[in-house]
Order: sequence, then C-alpha cells, then structure tokens
Amino acid sequence: MSGDEPARVHTIVVGAGSAGLTVAVGLTGLGRDVALVEAGEVGGDCTNVGCIPSKTLITLARAVAAAAPEARADAARAALAETRRRRDALRAHEEAWLAGMPRLTLVRGHARLLRGSRGACEVEVSAPDGSVRRLVAGRVVLATGSRPVVPPIPGLEAGARDERAPLTNATLFDLEAPPAHLVVLGGGAIGCEMAFAFARLGSRVTIVEMADRVLPGAEAAASSVVHARLEALGVSVLVDTKALEFERAAGRLRVAHARAGGQAKVASIDAVDRLLVAVGRRAASDALGLSEAGVKVDARGAVIIDGAYRTTAAGVYAIGDVVGAAHTHVANAHGRRLVRFLTVPLPLLPEGDHPSVAFVEPEVGQIGPTLAQLRRRWPDALLAVHKVMLSDTDRGRTSGLDDGFVQVVAMRLTGRLLAATVVAPDASEMLPLLSWAQRRRVSLWQLARLEVAYPALSAAIKQAADAFVFASVPRLAAEFGTYLRWRWRRGPRG
Amino acid sequence: MSGDEPARVHTIVVGAGSAGLTVAVGLTGLGRDVALVEAGEVGGDCTNVGCIPSKTLITLARAVAAAAPEARADAARAALAETRRRRDALRAHEEAWLAGMPRLTLVRGHARLLRGSRGACEVEVSAPDGSVRRLVAGRVVLATGSRPVVPPIPGLEAGARDERAPLTNATLFDLEAPPAHLVVLGGGAIGCEMAFAFARLGSRVTIVEMADRVLPGAEAAASSVVHARLEALGVSVLVDTKALEFERAAGRLRVAHARAGGQAKVASIDAVDRLLVAVGRRAASDALGLSEAGVKVDARGAVIIDGAYRTTAAGVYAIGDVVGAAHTHVANAHGRRLVRFLTVPLPLLPEGDHPSVAFVEPEVGQIGPTLAQLRRRWPDALLAVHKVMLSDTDRGRTSGLDDGFVQVVAMRLTGRLLAATVVAPDASEMLPLLSWAQRRRVSLWQLARLEVAYPALSAAIKQAADAFVFASVPRLAAEFGTYLRWRWRRGPRG
Repeated sequence: MSGDEPARVHTIVVGAGSAGLTVAVGLTGLGRDVALVEAGEVGGDCTNVGCIPSKTLITLARAVAAAAPEARADAARAALAETRRRRDALRAHEEAWLAGMPRLTLVRGHARLLRGSRGACEVEVSAPDGSVRRLVAGRVVLATGSRPVVPPIPGLEAGARDERAPLTNATLFDLEAPPAHLVVLGGGAIGCEMAFAFARLGSRVTIVEMADRVLPGAEAAASSVVHARLEALGVSVLVDTKALEFERAAGRLRVAHARAGGQAKVASIDAVDRLLVAVGRRAASDALGLSEAGVKVDARGAVIIDGAYRTTAAGVYAIGDVVGAAHTHVANAHGRRLVRFLTVPLPLLPEGDHPSVAFVEPEVGQIGPTLAQLRRRWPDALLAVHKVMLSDTDRGRTSGLDDGFVQVVAMRLTGRLLAATVVAPDASEMLPLLSWAQRRRVSLWQLARLEVAYPALSAAIKQAADAFVFASVPRLAAEFGTYLRWRWRRGPRG
Repeated sequence: MSGDEPARVHTIVVGAGSAGLTVAVGLTGLGRDVALVEAGEVGGDCTNVGCIPSKTLITLARAVAAAAPEARADAARAALAETRRRRDALRAHEEAWLAGMPRLTLVRGHARLLRGSRGACEVEVSAPDGSVRRLVAGRVVLATGSRPVVPPIPGLEAGARDERAPLTNATLFDLEAPPAHLVVLGGGAIGCEMAFAFARLGSRVTIVEMADRVLPGAEAAASSVVHARLEALGVSVLVDTKALEFERAAGRLRVAHARAGGQAKVASIDAVDRLLVAVGRRAASDALGLSEAGVKVDARGAVIIDGAYRTTAAGVYAIGDVVGAAHTHVANAHGRRLVRFLTVPLPLLPEGDHPSVAFVEPEVGQIGPTLAQLRRRWPDALLAVHKVMLSDTDRGRTSGLDDGFVQVVAMRLTGRLLAATVVAPDASEMLPLLSWAQRRRVSLWQLARLEVAYPALSAAIKQAADAFVFASVPRLAAEFGTYLRWRWRRGPRG
C-alpha cells in the first residue's frame, strides 16, 4: 500500500480498540483485506488506560495493604510499576499478534473520512511523520471509542501540566507513587474502583459525587454496601456534592453540598495532592470529518446508528464507545455482530441487555434494568422481587460474609427474569449464569432446578429462584387473573 | 406421640442430614405429618463434621498464614475454635428452625426397621435414655448418610484413644491446635482440602495416596495443578504409595511405594503426630435392620434403589449418601426429587450428572465424566476438546494467574456439551453456568453467544466455546459425514 493511487481494501476500520480489533480480526479471518487505522496505541483504552491496568492495580493493591507498614510505600511504587509492566507486555503481545495476521494492514495515524465516490468510501490518514495517505474500501467501520469528560470547572484545565494537574484514567497509571491525598471526582464504577485501589496503596482518598449515592447507576442497596466498605477502608465519601473550583496552587477543592430543602453549603477540601476526574466519558467522534461525510452524531457526540450499526452515511458503520457503549465486552459484542452482518447481511437479532460489573468491594454485577427503572415500565403487581442475603447462605456463613446479596426481578406468573443484581466477592463470576438466563429467557421456574455444588455462593441464585417458586405456587390462580387483566388493558401490541 | 400405641405419621424420615431434612421440610410444607429420627446431631455430616467446618477452616486458615510468624500458633488455635463456634451456631440455628416447624416431630434415637403390616411401615427408635418407641407411617425414607472408611491397617484401630489416635473428618475438627506433623491418608478432595488448611495453620503435612496422583477422580491436568500448589506450600505429596502399618507409640508410618515394573519399596514416614484417614466413605446402612425388612444393599453397603428412590422393600425409600451419593447438593437434589415423587407420583426425569467441586487451590470443578471416561464411551473422532488456559485470558493477566484452565468436551458437529472442568480460584462460581449448559443441553454453538462482563475469568468459557465454533465451521461437511457413519453403524438404539 504505497504510491499515489489510494490503496484499496475490503474494509477500513478506524480505531484498534476492542471494537475495531474484533471486526478487523473477524473479517481477515474470513478472507477479507482490512486496513486498521490507529492514531494511538493498539488495544485501545481497555488495554492501555482502562480495564487492564485498573484490574491489575486492584489486585496488586490488596497485597500492598497486607504488607508491613514500613514496607508499604515501596510496595505501592512497585505495584504501580508492575501495573505498567503487565500492561506493556499485553500491548506488545497484541501488537505482535496483529503484525502476524495475514490480510491485515495496520496504518498509524489520524483518520479523516472523505466523501467517497461510486459506492466507495475514502479515508485520509495523517501519519505522525506528517505524510498523508488515502485508503479506499467498500465500507468504513468507525470504532474510535471515547474519552474522559473533564467538566468546565476552574482549575481543571488540561493545558498547564503542573504537579497538581488533574488526572483522568488516561494519565492515572503513569503515577510513580500514590498521591498523599487523592480526590476522586465522580463515584461511579471507575471512581470507586480507583478509590479502593489507592486507599490500599496508602493514599488518603476522598470521593466527591454529585448524585445522592456512589454507583448511581446501580441498585440503591448495592450502593449502600459499597459505601459502607469504602468508609470502612477510610475513604471519605461525599455525596450530593458538586465541585466548584480547584485552586491548584493551594491544593484546595471548593465544593457545594446540597442540603434537603435548603441552600447548598459551600465547603473546602484541603491538602489535595491530585484530582482524578472520573465523571463520565464522551464519544471520540470529533476530528474525523463526520459531518462533511454525512455521518450524524447526537447531542452527546455519539454516532447515530440503526440496528445493524449503519450510520447516516452509506457504507459507514460505527460500533463500541463511539456509539455510546461503555464496556469492552459490549464493544466486542458489537464487533462480532457487525462481522456477522457484513458477512451474512440478514437482520440481526435484538442486542439484548448487556451485563455490567463494577470491580469494587464487594463486586457489583447487574443484568437488565434496575428495580426503579422496571417499576416505571411495569405495574408493581406484575413484578416479583426476591433478594437473598449472602449471610443467609451456607457459603456466606463459612466465609463469614456479612454483606452482599443476590436479587432477582421477574415477571410474576411466567417467572421471566427481567433483571438481576449480584453484590458478592466474585459477582463477576456469578453474573454470567444470570445474564444467560435473562437473555435466553430462562424463567425462575426453570432456574429453581439449578444444582450448585455445595457450598458455592451461587446457591443464592437457586435460593432466590426457590423463593419465587414458593411464593408463586399458592397464588397462581390470582396472578393468572392479574396477568390477564393487564394483557387485556394493554391491548395486542405485545 | 406417646403411650403404647405406635405413633402414626405420613412419613418417617431416618436421618436429619441434608437429604433427610430436605424431605422432612418439603413434606411438612405440603401439609404432611413427618417424624424425623436422628441418632446424632441435626444437620448431619455436612453441618457438623463436613463442608461447613471444612470450608470455614479453609477460609480462616488463609488469614492465619498471613499472620506474623510469632502470632501464628495462637491464630491457628483461634481459627480452630472459631470453626467450632460457627459450626455450633449453624447447628443451633438449624435446630431452632426445625423445632418451630409445624407438623414435624424430631425423634432422638437409633432407628430400626420392622416388618410392617397391612401396607404400613414400622420403625422402632431406641432413645439415648434407653426407652423404645414405635412409629408407624405409610412410608419410610432412609437418609442415614455415610461414615468414613478406616482401612484394616495395623495401628489404625479405632478402639484405644491415645494422643496419636487416627483422626477422621468426624474427629478432626475437635483438635485444639494443629498437629506438628499431620499425615493425610488419601489425596482425594477431603484429604487435599485439609492438607492446604493445616499447612496454612502451621502443620508439616504429608499426603499418602495409593493412586498415581492426587484427586484421582478429577482430570489428570487438574491433579497436576493442585499437586504443584501443594508442594509450593510445603506439603509432601507421596503418590503410588500405600500405608502398611502405623506404629503409634513411635509415631512412624510404614508405607510401600510402587515402582514402575519393579517391586514396591518399603519406607517409613517418621515423627508423625496425627494421621487423618480420608480414603473414602461407606454408606451407613448397618444396624438399621435392613435385611430383615427386605431392603437390599450392594457390596459397598449402599442401599439399592430404582429411579424413584424405591428400595427393594415396599414403602421404603432411600436417598443421599446411603445410596452412594457423595455430596450435600446431591443429597439435597435427591430429597427434592423424592418429595416431588411422593406428592405427584409420575415418573421422574433422569437425574443427570451432578457437579462437584474440590475446594483446593485453585478450586477444581467438574460436571460430567472425565475425558478418559468419555473416550471409553465415544469414538475419539466424535469428541471435540477445547482447553483455555487462564493465563491466556485477560483477567488471568491482570490477576497474574499462571495456572488453571477451563476445559470443555463436546460432541463434534452438534456441539452438545458432555463435560467441563474448571480449575480456577473461584471455580465453584464459574461451574454453575457450565453445569446448567451440560444438563439443559445448551450447545457450544449457543454458548459462544455468551456475553461476559469484561474482564471476568468466566470469559474463558466463552473462549472455549469460540474455539469450538472456529474449529467446527471449516469442517462441518466432513464431520457431518463422520457423524452419519457413526450413527449408521451404531444402529437405531440411540
């Protein structure tokens, strides 16, 4: 691929993160020529500044906390260095693997969509050395991911890089040592995960969250458990609190704390060494020439797509964070589904709900909507909610667990699983079965027949299904009536 | 229930362990009067001398190993005491729960079957105070469990209780302090679990196993991983080794080590403080008057039953360890199925394979037969085997795992899951999905559509299913031919 003539391939993939790699590897495996354009590091945010370093640090931080007090500072620096070493090793592994892949060309540089002609898509790539090359293909897949949002608060400007420059996930893992006092703006999954990790590394940690609880997207009961664990570890958790200004030179963060029915109270958090901004992410859809190419984005910058990941421009597809997804496994699922669609252009099945796990303590896993969301969608009389506390399970007793739970929400009568929450030390490994059941329409009637090797914690899933069965059998007739009345009123739309 | 007239109930359940409790609670919940006869402690082996104390000790022993060296001996004694305390608390909880159960009568004493008359079953119960009472019911459920086997080796006689009296699971948890040198006879699940626990409590531990590997019932690759971990913890593992004699006074165990193609080499293990006998269990079917009542047992003492847990005597059923089951969850499954059958006497579906987990390090979970067993049943050309090393998964990388794996064995072409092995830190929580898939005939074609929240280790399950799909697609035609030829030769039986 050189010379003046634009190089022609089957598909151009822009972005070598989880979504883009899945498409590139899938299509080349099926015999198509693919050009994969990447301006940054192969592996995307996940490998470089996301899940991989964060989960590594979470694991290593536990050992640091167990070290003798006098050895802790050195152990913390070593953990941060080891996190970078493992991340770099994985990135090198992925690069070598890509390099050896037939039919795949990795093109380094910034991509820009051009208006294609005669059904072809064109992309212009500006390489780091200033050279520009053009690629032509039948289709382009945008998989440029997302970037952390830095709110427009005085003192958070990205420009000046001083010793108190605000951190995001993109720069956090470059730290050589844990800050003495780390303030985390945003108590979502990333913020809480890093609060646990840095508290264990020896930092004093303060979380500042605007909502009324940490993990605001999770079940409220899950937030309570995690909040209590954060405080037990010495993390200060400020909810209903909004950052107003970061006085960098003084290391002072001014915040406003909302009070019920009253005026917000302004306060200061002093002796702030570093600020981690983890208030959300925004689709990386700028500087790609999208509007000129006819690709529309929504108000949050996410590329607008249909059920087959087609954008508003012919031949241009978009998947992963750039369309508003927020998880590596969702990006991967998008990529797999798009490969299916590009290979066999029949309609795709609906995507279904995606599981999510916050790797906090205990881990918080969710499939399907929260109970509050379900209650806005269904009448309460149709919902069955069963919650099993882990302390009421035999493994919970042998492991001395005093918090955590499994909650299932199902349709009464049919037992169709609508949503499930797992708050447990290894919720990430307990969730796949519930996620499978929810997506494959396995009912709680069926799930009650689950057999779990004693005494795994997953028995709580069976106990919840049992509770549904025991509650449902005596009132089957009544619930059948409720269900019929609801169907009747709702009409035939489904 | 007193006086000379025998008390009459709907069902007499003999044994208040996992199997018996399930039936008693299930039937009383459905409005039947049940007499539950128990000679020992409520809760059976599991609560008192099985899973509950062993899993508690495994958990607590980890903290002991992390304690400072000078504090370890005290911490070990505290861990053993805490294990008993939690066990006793659970037992008290179960007893209180039973006592408050309407329609249930707990009868303390040894049961003996009498020949019933006119379609009724009679049981004679000898109470600890010497009194004898008779119970009459329409049916009797035997759920007396099993007892550890003590092989007829000199020095292992149960009689004399000296300071070196051999231990079994029934006496192990009475220890006040870990023995200086514990020899474990038998390297199965119980033996290995306790080897890990006592090594962490500070004991020198030696395992003596007759077979050529520890966990002889597991996949050989799983045994290797656990063997390496045992040795890394300082446990001496002697395989192909048979105990000959325990010289109690001298604390010396004489063993014979089998050598390939040669004569066994006799050797001694010296300075043995205690011996834990964990070579297997035998159905507790003696002293129940079974043969007089017409209930037949097999050569291993297990009560012979049909697919609905009916023994060879009318009205007498048997479930759990006394019929040869070996797990609490299997006993529970038997109990649930029997309640179903006694309530709705339609044929039961086949029982299916039961999952099993050894709570060793890493945990070893299995559903379905081992690969060696499957190869005796199916031609190799029909089996697809896919193994994913945890070190090749992203969570494995972030957690620094360098052993463990997920293995699936499926029918080629159809992808029907026949068996799966999980060797992982939390295999017990990863296995339920595979167990569900194997029992509910979810194929690997379907399981490849699993979506796992990144980066859970359960992604290895999906990776294994993916590997099956990638290997199968290119050779679908050839495998369809192989399958048809095999079906043709096998004939119509199935």
